[in-house]
Amino acid sequence: MKRKICFVITSKIHYSRSKLILEELKKNKNIELQIVVGGSAILEHYGDVLSLMEGDGFKCDAKIAMTLEGGDSLAMAKTAGIGLSEFSTVFDNLKPDVVVVRADRYEVLSAATAAAYLNIPVAHIEGGDITGTIDESVRHAVTKLAHIHFTTNDISRNRVIKMGENSDYVFNFGAAELEMVALNDFEATNEYINYIGVGSEVDIDKSYLMVSQHPVTTEIGQNRRNIEETLEAIHELKIPTVWFWPNIDAGTSEVAKGIRAFRENRNLDHVRFIKYIPPEEYIGLLKKASVLVGNSSSGIKESSYTGTPVVNIGTRQDGRMRAENIVDVGYNKKEIKEAIEKQIAKGKNEASNLYYQPGTAKNIADTLANIKLYTQKSFKE
Amino acid sequence: MKRKICFVITSKIHYSRSKLILEELKKNKNIELQIVVGGSAILEHYGDVLSLMEGDGFKCDAKIAMTLEGGDSLAMAKTAGIGLSEFSTVFDNLKPDVVVVRADRYEVLSAATAAAYLNIPVAHIEGGDITGTIDESVRHAVTKLAHIHFTTNDISRNRVIKMGENSDYVFNFGAAELEMVALNDFEATNEYINYIGVGSEVDIDKSYLMVSQHPVTTEIGQNRRNIEETLEAIHELKIPTVWFWPNIDAGTSEVAKGIRAFRENRNLDHVRFIKYIPPEEYIGLLKKASVLVGNSSSGIKESSYTGTPVVNIGTRQDGRMRAENIVDVGYNKKEIKEAIEKQIAKGKNEASNLYYQPGTAKNIADTLANIKLYTQKSFKE
Amino acid sequence: MKRKICFVITSKIHYSRSKLILEELKKNKNIELQIVVGGSAILEHYGDVLSLMEGDGFKCDAKIAMTLEGGDSLAMAKTAGIGLSEFSTVFDNLKPDVVVVRADRYEVLSAATAAAYLNIPVAHIEGGDITGTIDESVRHAVTKLAHIHFTTNDISRNRVIKMGENSDYVFNFGAAELEMVALNDFEATNEYINYIGVGSEVDIDKSYLMVSQHPVTTEIGQNRRNIEETLEAIHELKIPTVWFWPNIDAGTSEVAKGIRAFRENRNLDHVRFIKYIPPEEYIGLLKKASVLVGNSSSGIKESSYTGTPVVNIGTRQDGRMRAENIVDVGYNKKEIKEAIEKQIAKGKNEASNLYYQPGTAKNIADTLANIKLYTQKSFKE
Amino acid sequence: MKRKICFVITSKIHYSRSKLILEELKKNKNIELQIVVGGSAILEHYGDVLSLMEGDGFKCDAKIAMTLEGGDSLAMAKTAGIGLSEFSTVFDNLKPDVVVVRADRYEVLSAATAAAYLNIPVAHIEGGDITGTIDESVRHAVTKLAHIHFTTNDISRNRVIKMGENSDYVFNFGAAELEMVALNDFEATNEYINYIGVGSEVDIDKSYLMVSQHPVTTEIGQNRRNIEETLEAIHELKIPTVWFWPNIDAGTSEVAKGIRAFRENRNLDHVRFIKYIPPEEYIGLLKKASVLVGNSSSGIKESSYTGTPVVNIGTRQDGRMRAENIVDVGYNKKEIKEAIEKQIAKGKNEASNLYYQPGTAKNIADTLANIKLYTQKSFKE
Repeated sequence: MKRKICFVITSKIHYSRSKLILEELKKNKNIELQIVVGGSAILEHYGDVLSLMEGDGFKCDAKIAMTLEGGDSLAMAKTAGIGLSEFSTVFDNLKPDVVVVRADRYEVLSAATAAAYLNIPVAHIEGGDITGTIDESVRHAVTKLAHIHFTTNDISRNRVIKMGENSDYVFNFGAAELEMVALNDFEATNEYINYIGVGSEVDIDKSYLMVSQHPVTTEIGQNRRNIEETLEAIHELKIPTVWFWPNIDAGTSEVAKGIRAFRENRNLDHVRFIKYIPPEEYIGLLKKASVLVGNSSSGIKESSYTGTPVVNIGTRQDGRMRAENIVDVGYNKKEIKEAIEKQIAKGKNEASNLYYQPGTAKNIADTLANIKLYTQKSFKE
Repeated sequence: MKRKICFVITSKIHYSRSKLILEELKKNKNIELQIVVGGSAILEHYGDVLSLMEGDGFKCDAKIAMTLEGGDSLAMAKTAGIGLSEFSTVFDNLKPDVVVVRADRYEVLSAATAAAYLNIPVAHIEGGDITGTIDESVRHAVTKLAHIHFTTNDISRNRVIKMGENSDYVFNFGAAELEMVALNDFEATNEYINYIGVGSEVDIDKSYLMVSQHPVTTEIGQNRRNIEETLEAIHELKIPTVWFWPNIDAGTSEVAKGIRAFRENRNLDHVRFIKYIPPEEYIGLLKKASVLVGNSSSGIKESSYTGTPVVNIGTRQDGRMRAENIVDVGYNKKEIKEAIEKQIAKGKNEASNLYYQPGTAKNIADTLANIKLYTQKSFKE
Repeated sequence: MKRKICFVITSKIHYSRSKLILEELKKNKNIELQIVVGGSAILEHYGDVLSLMEGDGFKCDAKIAMTLEGGDSLAMAKTAGIGLSEFSTVFDNLKPDVVVVRADRYEVLSAATAAAYLNIPVAHIEGGDITGTIDESVRHAVTKLAHIHFTTNDISRNRVIKMGENSDYVFNFGAAELEMVALNDFEATNEYINYIGVGSEVDIDKSYLMVSQHPVTTEIGQNRRNIEETLEAIHELKIPTVWFWPNIDAGTSEVAKGIRAFRENRNLDHVRFIKYIPPEEYIGLLKKASVLVGNSSSGIKESSYTGTPVVNIGTRQDGRMRAENIVDVGYNKKEIKEAIEKQIAKGKNEASNLYYQPGTAKNIADTLANIKLYTQKSFKE
Repeated sequence: MKRKICFVITSKIHYSRSKLILEELKKNKNIELQIVVGGSAILEHYGDVLSLMEGDGFKCDAKIAMTLEGGDSLAMAKTAGIGLSEFSTVFDNLKPDVVVVRADRYEVLSAATAAAYLNIPVAHIEGGDITGTIDESVRHAVTKLAHIHFTTNDISRNRVIKMGENSDYVFNFGAAELEMVALNDFEATNEYINYIGVGSEVDIDKSYLMVSQHPVTTEIGQNRRNIEETLEAIHELKIPTVWFWPNIDAGTSEVAKGIRAFRENRNLDHVRFIKYIPPEEYIGLLKKASVLVGNSSSGIKESSYTGTPVVNIGTRQDGRMRAENIVDVGYNKKEIKEAIEKQIAKGKNEASNLYYQPGTAKNIADTLANIKLYTQKSFKE
């Protein structure tokens, strides 16, 4: 009988980064792939992942509506609760042999907790990293609920083992999203970029910036002020810019309000705003960008391989290993502006192998197909 | 302004074991004590904790109904989800400075997760222990969400630090429930024991057994068969016995069904069944018992200090430090019976200080009142 | 394309009473039958409806765990909320053309509300009756959310039309549970009755009573005292009795506590207690019983056709049409005792056609298959 | 002891329309006023009702986060379920003697159901009206759960009685929102209108239109196309316009998307968009408007008294009594445009007393303070 592997997708970026793994799982003869889509991934105004998946030949086995309006900490906490209750029902009906979750968003803790309580082994991708925000706590809590660990680098692998996990079940196969970058020759076009999104046209055959700055959940109340520093810097630089809308998280409403108010009252006519872009186009854009600005993890991971210069703002990526392409700055217009100028002057970097390994997706799929499963965890001294 | 400390109670035994700490928190001048009662603690047929608390002079600031019927894994998982959503609402209204949770039941993960998402520091009592069942995963996941740790022994303290917690925030003040035993001269009387509960009268001035065997959540489907081995052993021994009803957990319905069916169809007229007993009477009973049989943590912790001989059955307490008073056996009538006979022959043990320290409750309360609080966690290498 | 008819089952008795309809829906060539089972129907200790259904050749398309522990009004209200949220998810996935609900339990309002919000037409069986408890409000609220009405008698049909429903969509085909009684020659045997349940053996070849008394949700706080009057009456009469355990509802814990305490402290050794009995055996038992005592609707409906003498206690069935077989009494030991004695003296009644019509189930199924569906309701003056 | 009256507010417009009643309840000496705020009323981007209330001297006793993201039928249905569960907890803690709900939004059914299950009498304002959308079903279902009815006109009063309600508990004191209009001399200023909202400046000292068009929940999938007809008409007319953002409801995302896309791609530089406006300014604006366009109930009720010409589009207000000020049209650019031109030509109407009575708010408050309360409903033939 085929092993039933249930893959959980809870955001657009999560889908993008997992596509190679999904493909390997789908073509593995010993695996029956189940896909559960929940959280912001089913909300159309955050990018329609369901149609995207369908276009890519994947079937959604269950859809979970769980995201409470509010964009604050309370909404996030209650959403996680609703999600835990809903994932339980779904897993109880699908009866998977393994549930696979990825990274550290709050929906991920819901899914991992549901599976663990139902005695279904949990596989966790990207554990052991260190960052800021509530993600830092969630990621390690998921590690302690999970049975199989796919870290993206050796330092993280060692951390997971140090936390008491069985080293036979902790793997470092590299980061699947970097394999996607390495295997493909993604390109973004002016035509496409200026078809999606709103705001000014941007010519990406010339020099341009990308901005992707998400709220920091442990800095509630300050996210609007923080985004305004970036807005001011971009406003003053007048360099053509592609700006990505923030993820849903506690604090999203603060960031969104900051951007909306600035857009209404100030001139940002060199900026194009985009809510969702397929991963192929995002990588294409990243490869040609003069600088990526903000606090996206793509600045740490994907950019280490594409060599894109990054200005990383604030605390969200604190603790993650960095390649040579990154300059860290605080929430400060002047610092941000100067760092962008410095990065433009310095130019593109060499590809780093900090997070990249060939064969990531296949190694993960093969392991999921063949590893001996267990339910009762026990701390390894 | 006083620091608002919110103490979460989710089961009868949890209340019993926390009473000294609650008293210290209540009399500390720098603390405003909030108490939230949820889970099985508000269900009358599991022991009426609300009236008990009131009798002891404590006020319930919020009551949370969250326990789904079913007694299986699905009910447990969904209950945790409902709880996460409800605790979020309650904490958002009470706005505590610290939320205090204890041990490793599933409701505890709900409360800790809610507080962490709301950026409220979490204090966790009894982290770092090792046991079986899903409690093992939940306990360590709570550790990774918590900011202040009160372990009950040094081995557990070291484990918590090894998991990446800041050693300045990890304390070993001993186990509060043992301090309660040490400070009081609890006594159980025939009159009281035969007033509560159902079944036969038991004379506790003569030799008697206690049985307390809870379901093992990772052994769903086998809990009925496992309890039947114990029932058979007790049935054959014919020694007067006080039997405690199991906690609500996945698998409770299996255990309950096993006991009910045995009681209807076989003769257990030397056994008295009790659903809830106040902690004072429980300890009084434990001190005089010939043997405690089952898998209760009171066999590991309280009994180490009272010196009560224990026959510990199965995997639920795997990994916990043991004093000299314990004999471990499998789910097997013969093994159980022989171990009980052996323990009766051997008799009472010396008090061990494995889990006991003087001043536990006061040290915890003082620390909660004075320690510098923080929100953003970061893994200590 | 076949019309997808989704039938909702939320209690054991609901399943029993709907079996003929389910069979007609299943064999209708224009219908694809979907069955959703939720509420107490999935709780094993209230009777295992899922296995029963499977044995009868029906498939459960979705299972909904929604029942909160507590047995009080709060648990009932929150259960309805959880149910509304869960039914929504299930209907959104199953995409039925019509949702069929029956009667007036709180889970029924959840299912009808979910369907109505999702723009799925709702068919309601047994609307327009008048009774006591919260059921009275729930039944009429469901009528105002429903699009197709299958009442069981003409008085109820007229009431539904008076409430503003379109008379073309309000039918009286009689009560399906009476058709089941009419079509079958059900028999209960001593062997079976004394195999299930607990307590004393009862010889049903001689004279015996049946008791079925549920809590009244609008009399919270008085249900224990009320059941005690019945217990006292049965205790004094000493006639062999088969006693059915109450449904889950607000107040169930009061009734259950009353029965349990009486059983522990007083002598009821002429009584057998049964939690669940298949409908066939129940009807078999009802046909031979000397008197049915309590407040079950089977005393009003089924007994009108079987002619069984009934002592109906209290307010729960207030307002329902009665045949000649019923004597109404208050919550009073003396009244109950005397009425039972009087009914035994009077003996069996003629079958009444008050609620019975031939062809009920087939008429309902045919209507569901062929009627023109609509979504937007509008009050008919 | 004072009677505890708990008033439920679930949207900005609901607050606005209830202010006079809240004031009367607050100053009544026999009443202790409790206010519960939930649903979209606590979402800042739909207008910050909490600060507004505070500014008006009211205290929020409990805040309920319940609104699921999605803007579709599923989100609405699940939101109602979450709300039912949350209102139950809140009412169980506040223990009101009466819960007051108003109108027909989905959150209102949640609150009424929660109260009814908890045996708390429900008072319902604005029952018995007839309209389109799911509101039609919800309004009448709430009537069947409610114990006291405050209708706004005699036709509605008769309908409520016809549905089986006790006429001693069904009152027509007129519409409180019209009393507010009658008692005050509200004025809107250019300064204020052009301070709030986004888009072009509008000079309200000259002729202007107002647009307020909400989604129709039973026309899911067509709401975007429908709003586009209105957008085209307004676009062609080029008359200065104040456009109000739609309420949260199933279909809101369709309407919002239609407006956003039109705004990005077409020229609407004679239009100002407003998300929330206090009731005083709204009425001020309504009194001076040349025409109110859309499907807001303020076109039916408030405008009957202010005499504002109204072009009512589509089915949402079907069945409501109309004064002379209304022209009804379909979802059709041409019809809408011609009707607007016709209404401008005809000009302002006389005040109608169709929905207005003096003393509405005081009569409601006095009745709530003094009426004999009851719990068990029973259908009046």
